[in-house]
Amino acid sequence: MPTTVPALLTDAPGAAFHRGTVERRDLGPRDVAIDIAFAGICHSDIHQVREEWGGAIFPMVPGHEIAGTVTAVGADVEGYAVGDRVGVGCFVDSCRECEYCLAGEEQFCLKGNVGTYNARGYDGEVTYGGYSTSVVVDERYVLRIPDGIELDVAAPLLCAGITTYSPLKHWGVGPGSKVAVVGLGGLGHMAVQLAKAMGAEVTVISRSRGKEEDGRRLGADSWVATNEEGALKALRNTFDLIVNTVSADVDVDALARTLRVGGSLVYVGAPSERQSFAVFSLIGGRRSVAGSNIGGIAETQEMLDFCGVHGIGAEVERIGADEVTDAYDRVVDGEVHYRFVIDTATIPA
Amino acid sequence: MPTTVPALLTDAPGAAFHRGTVERRDLGPRDVAIDIAFAGICHSDIHQVREEWGGAIFPMVPGHEIAGTVTAVGADVEGYAVGDRVGVGCFVDSCRECEYCLAGEEQFCLKGNVGTYNARGYDGEVTYGGYSTSVVVDERYVLRIPDGIELDVAAPLLCAGITTYSPLKHWGVGPGSKVAVVGLGGLGHMAVQLAKAMGAEVTVISRSRGKEEDGRRLGADSWVATNEEGALKALRNTFDLIVNTVSADVDVDALARTLRVGGSLVYVGAPSERQSFAVFSLIGGRRSVAGSNIGGIAETQEMLDFCGVHGIGAEVERIGADEVTDAYDRVVDGEVHYRFVIDTATIPA
Repeated sequence: MPTTVPALLTDAPGAAFHRGTVERRDLGPRDVAIDIAFAGICHSDIHQVREEWGGAIFPMVPGHEIAGTVTAVGADVEGYAVGDRVGVGCFVDSCRECEYCLAGEEQFCLKGNVGTYNARGYDGEVTYGGYSTSVVVDERYVLRIPDGIELDVAAPLLCAGITTYSPLKHWGVGPGSKVAVVGLGGLGHMAVQLAKAMGAEVTVISRSRGKEEDGRRLGADSWVATNEEGALKALRNTFDLIVNTVSADVDVDALARTLRVGGSLVYVGAPSERQSFAVFSLIGGRRSVAGSNIGGIAETQEMLDFCGVHGIGAEVERIGADEVTDAYDRVVDGEVHYRFVIDTATIPA
Repeated sequence: MPTTVPALLTDAPGAAFHRGTVERRDLGPRDVAIDIAFAGICHSDIHQVREEWGGAIFPMVPGHEIAGTVTAVGADVEGYAVGDRVGVGCFVDSCRECEYCLAGEEQFCLKGNVGTYNARGYDGEVTYGGYSTSVVVDERYVLRIPDGIELDVAAPLLCAGITTYSPLKHWGVGPGSKVAVVGLGGLGHMAVQLAKAMGAEVTVISRSRGKEEDGRRLGADSWVATNEEGALKALRNTFDLIVNTVSADVDVDALARTLRVGGSLVYVGAPSERQSFAVFSLIGGRRSVAGSNIGGIAETQEMLDFCGVHGIGAEVERIGADEVTDAYDRVVDGEVHYRFVIDTATIPA
């Protein structure tokens, strides 16, 4: 019999959150029941709640940056035990048969993986996310949180962490690399820390110098403010990789021209506006514009372990259930430093 | 004392060609004098003659697909002797000091390499290209044409050949690769032959089936006509690499979605219109949109040797000096199969 658990729900595009309940399925043989401690607020939660990406299922319980503790395990679970500190990220199932699932890149599952919320499982049941007190997830989609990372600062790693770690690894960042991070928000503040820990020389490209002090504290070696005339032009042939974390329009040509030959400008934010470029900006240096999307389960675990070794976590502002609706506006306005996490203990009525 | 030689000149943007002369410099110690047999007409000649790329220098003698025979060598020339069959491509000098020149990627010379025509040498002298009977070039920018390739079919390899060979090599095409070539024109008909010879499975993506027979004869395994409803949609997750050879606007999103995870859509044509894309088209499969620009001298020689081994040349239509002005319109209209080469014996008045 499913368990009824407290959750924060929203009933229509843009409607305020309210307390309520959702049902969590009975523990299957490979399932893990997790007592959620914190759930991060990701910008994509806002896009989905406001139906800016289409296809929203209401009522919705967002949340795919989940950190908590195992409270029960199914009969055949091998990887986890009661009391383990665990996380859940952006998806909770995948086909496990396609070439990408078999390669551990479940984020590109050809059948389409099952989102942690605002999705339907292969059985047709709607999924509800981490703005709740507990969740049941197949152990194959559960991650282990290293002991050195507190659960609140760990939660955002499950999306913001892996979203930035994956392209840094894929594009070969290491000692000697010159990496630029566009935007110092939830994603950007992770990208700076991770690239620095991988040994790169890190530059933040931001509109102004407003967050420069934070950026340098997080590990940035340089700061470029695009509201200063000629700032990007001075950086011709500089970066091996630019990770673009902003959801707004960017000047693709100006950024591309700061890349070295063979360099890549990689989008991890997802602006809804079409982006445009002059072909010569790419041809002139065998440059690429690319996109990257979270990571697979194995790589997400690798990222968490890397964060454990290097003492990396998100910078978080804890909020209660009553503050979530307002927090969304603050995220959109760029006023969070640098991730809200919901203390799920405040959710029960 | 410079030598005065016959050439085809144009005096203003879009003006007809006329016979005339240009001066070729005295043979320096590392210079090679070349009796030009054929010069290919590249689409970029047209862009430059019509001043569509700006910065045109008139009178202009285009031509950077040059094939001919060595008639004299400077005192210190080591690589070539009188009678050698040689070619000259898109540039005739570079700084030889920057990181890219030192790496053999002179096409990305940070000082800016010296174009074969419509450019100024580092000494300030204007360069004149291959629509002429002879040229003097530093041996470091001269290529050897393998015995098995006739000079007329060799000429277009110096630009169209290397422009398509370089991205195929850079993106790792080989046996098992699935490559799509967008457009079967001067560049496209080279890309098909080269990709096939590298062992790839090759698909041509064209507006219609008009050139399908040619495409298959050149080595294409499949042909996709985008004027047939749903043609691209059926190709989801298919290609490792798409080489876009057309100068017109393309549907970046529709093409990107035919790429496999990690695949790249590479522009080698240079449309003057800005190109646009939806970010999700890239993020959804870690896909890239990139540009590639000719190749270095060493890679160009490698390409020529590869063509010699595999018996690859351009399909050419020989024309005389009087036909060049009209030929430009035919190139723009896509009516050439697949490259015009000027028989330079027809240039002297």
